[in-house]
Amino acid sequence: MTFHITNPMDMHLHLREGDMLNAILPFSANIFSAGVVMPNLKTPITTTQQALAYKANIESNSPKPFMPLVSIFLTPNLDKAELQKAKDAGIKILKLYPKGATTGSEGGVGDILCEKTLHIFELAQDLGFILSIHGESYGFCMEREYEFLEVFAFIAQHFPRLKVIIEHMSDRRSLEMIEKYENLYGTLTLHHITLCLDDVLGGALNPHLFCKPMLKTPKDRDALLQAALSAHPKISFGSDSAPHLESAKLSAKGAAGIFSAPVLLPKLVALFESHNALEHIQDFLSNRAITHYALSDFPKKDIILERKNFEVPSHIDTPLGRVIPLYAGEILPWRIKDIHL
Amino acid sequence: MTFHITNPMDMHLHLREGDMLNAILPFSANIFSAGVVMPNLKTPITTTQQALAYKANIESNSPKPFMPLVSIFLTPNLDKAELQKAKDAGIKILKLYPKGATTGSEGGVGDILCEKTLHIFELAQDLGFILSIHGESYGFCMEREYEFLEVFAFIAQHFPRLKVIIEHMSDRRSLEMIEKYENLYGTLTLHHITLCLDDVLGGALNPHLFCKPMLKTPKDRDALLQAALSAHPKISFGSDSAPHLESAKLSAKGAAGIFSAPVLLPKLVALFESHNALEHIQDFLSNRAITHYALSDFPKKDIILERKNFEVPSHIDTPLGRVIPLYAGEILPWRIKDIHL
Repeated sequence: MTFHITNPMDMHLHLREGDMLNAILPFSANIFSAGVVMPNLKTPITTTQQALAYKANIESNSPKPFMPLVSIFLTPNLDKAELQKAKDAGIKILKLYPKGATTGSEGGVGDILCEKTLHIFELAQDLGFILSIHGESYGFCMEREYEFLEVFAFIAQHFPRLKVIIEHMSDRRSLEMIEKYENLYGTLTLHHITLCLDDVLGGALNPHLFCKPMLKTPKDRDALLQAALSAHPKISFGSDSAPHLESAKLSAKGAAGIFSAPVLLPKLVALFESHNALEHIQDFLSNRAITHYALSDFPKKDIILERKNFEVPSHIDTPLGRVIPLYAGEILPWRIKDIHL
Repeated sequence: MTFHITNPMDMHLHLREGDMLNAILPFSANIFSAGVVMPNLKTPITTTQQALAYKANIESNSPKPFMPLVSIFLTPNLDKAELQKAKDAGIKILKLYPKGATTGSEGGVGDILCEKTLHIFELAQDLGFILSIHGESYGFCMEREYEFLEVFAFIAQHFPRLKVIIEHMSDRRSLEMIEKYENLYGTLTLHHITLCLDDVLGGALNPHLFCKPMLKTPKDRDALLQAALSAHPKISFGSDSAPHLESAKLSAKGAAGIFSAPVLLPKLVALFESHNALEHIQDFLSNRAITHYALSDFPKKDIILERKNFEVPSHIDTPLGRVIPLYAGEILPWRIKDIHL
């Protein structure tokens, strides 16, 4: 028994750089036709020049055709000339991190609704950029995404022609927001639709499931899962796959991020199948993204999965050390059989 | 400037066994006059014989006079003869863990309100035991203590002469319960009155602050702190100090427990001082326990603290490996100057 997914899109992923990039890139670039690549590198990607160099780096290391949609890290110093340059170079996504919200976000925006940032939003709207936001307040960790929703509402109202994405939605109350504002969209990860805080610290502590935004309640997980299973028209898939070395995860200052790339399609097919929702997976994994991000000219891929057991690798070796993937060691009922270009 | 605390009592602590016991015992036995010692050893203490052997072991290894109030692990197999034996041997505390709720609780009670357990409660009431409960449901981790309160209410109502302790209260709603039922009491740890979930995973993940019951919201922390600062008449101090090796904390299956023994008195004095509540600390740290547990014949201690900086050790060496204490490396404004027996 086989199942096909054509042109899967990962609208939020971390490919890192150097040895880590080379080691983990195939897990995404083999399977996905395109992916929105996050700019929070050690030196964040804040200029068109850096973005294009990163894009070329990814393309030259991709084992298969893959379209990296590189994004630009929104800092208060971004100006009109740089934005125009980015636009002319085909870059369409700006990524906003609240300062310090997650890995590599120290250069992010401290005061999001200050004049300088609002001016960037204005320019971004005029130039047709998509604004992707890691939306978290500085409040109590369980409420950070919810508390940030008022910022999304403000931006959505004041820049009605700017397409804004609530990245990696983790709180069910975010769903109401994308339904309320026409220009608000969302992405969903695999882990936020299958896991909750209990999986992180309800039993023994599992640092490999520690991520930002944090996994929330079972109710949040279930509501987000329903949105994915029904291929909600305003949501595309974005894995937020974010590799960290095992040593950085099992630390007194454990790194936030879940490396899900090796398991995404088999797990998602198993998940949708178990909920009798396979008919919607093509929309969730590809069609929504193509529409929301106006994607074209991406490499065409036909991913053929077969109903045979797949044991998720216990770890991935890199020259820097081991990385532990999501669902390491679990047996999934589907595996990737073939990839047709 | 000095400050005295007489006969401090730690009504909930884990002293472990073997090399770990020997390494960590002085931190508690030097300072406290008495302590309720938890029975969740590798082989849980389920009989009077085991309890007395453990008591003798602690006493013979104590560098200073210290009264270990050993407790018996409540299993469904506990019977009247064993309870009578415990009572005759001067043991006054039964400890109930829901099966699997925390470290070493696999032998705990699965169905707390089954006929067998209710019969043990009946016997315990008649013999005048104190029933100490780690009260957590099997629900969503943030709601486990709250969900368990109905079990406390049931026991309090049906066994009105049985003194029942809500151990290590972590949820502000537990405070309402001890006020509602005359025979319900509580203990409070240092960490639940100073920390919340943000400290565990609001920034980087801090496995050293992972514990059961989990740290909850800032509102919970603040309400519990107020109860401590006012020396709530139904609450005694119980640190729940619970050492684990650093290697067991920084693991893919991280151990639950915070080793607070090395820092308790200096931190508590600093905390009460900063809230202008030093006048209540003697009640919180000693007098409430003496009343609630009817303590007498304990070794008398006068602990003299001085207002000089104390750097909390970065780690404690044991023959088994390092243990990281709570507030490791922090500078506290008070330190222990002398201990008068």
